Amino acid sequence: MNDAHTVLAANAAFYDAHESRNLAAMQAVWEHSDRVACTHPGWPILRGWAEVETSWRRILEGPGRNQFIITNDTVEVVGEVAWVTCDENLVAPGSTFTVAATNVFVRDPGRGWLMVNHHGSPVGA
Amino acid sequence: MNDAHTVLAANAAFYDAHESRNLAAMQAVWEHSDRVACTHPGWPILRGWAEVETSWRRILEGPGRNQFIITNDTVEVVGEVAWVTCDENLVAPGSTFTVAATNVFVRDPGRGWLMVNHHGSPVGA
Repeated sequence: MNDAHTVLAANAAFYDAHESRNLAAMQAVWEHSDRVACTHPGWPILRGWAEVETSWRRILEGPGRNQFIITNDTVEVVGEVAWVTCDENLVAPGSTFTVAATNVFVRDPGRGWLMVNHHGSPVGA
Repeated sequence: MNDAHTVLAANAAFYDAHESRNLAAMQAVWEHSDRVACTHPGWPILRGWAEVETSWRRILEGPGRNQFIITNDTVEVVGEVAWVTCDENLVAPGSTFTVAATNVFVRDPGRGWLMVNHHGSPVGA
């Protein structure tokens, strides 16, 4: 796979981890460092892996259930950094809504492309 | 200035252009390419400089007036790419609100650090 395809696979793994509520898979997607940041839709910016991991632990342990259908995705790779923009179409019983997302990845020599920033925002809110 | 300071100066120029409603200054902040993307708070993702520029033209020509006070900003630089996260605190008569932002920059050999992605989302929405 070329870089773009590998990054899109990492991006897909992020949404698979969320949809399947798999914390270990979510941990595997992210860089575990102070420089990571995560902005869930409507939330303030969370910074550093400890804070980001805690948010995912609570989200994935919670009652929410969503199917993620990713559309309109693009990827750009410049050196060891890549960023993806995409629409997260969330399907829940009786409703659907769309979250616009920006996901930034950095290539780790051992672990491959790791997420360093996720930013999601509700479209139409 | 080191890279982090130069990127933060580019980030500040973006908000100065917005606050002063200066389209030429906003044009100077951005890379003019197909790979740029911009997600205004609550909007769908806009892609490509033509679409992004049109959005800024309409926003800056409109009636809105805001003072931007940037807080909680961090910058990371990896090679020719940098990303900033920050809070945009918007002060308008009688109200204030906060937008969480992720801004991605790529270093251009001639023009310096140029914005390739802006993503803003309302905090608390």
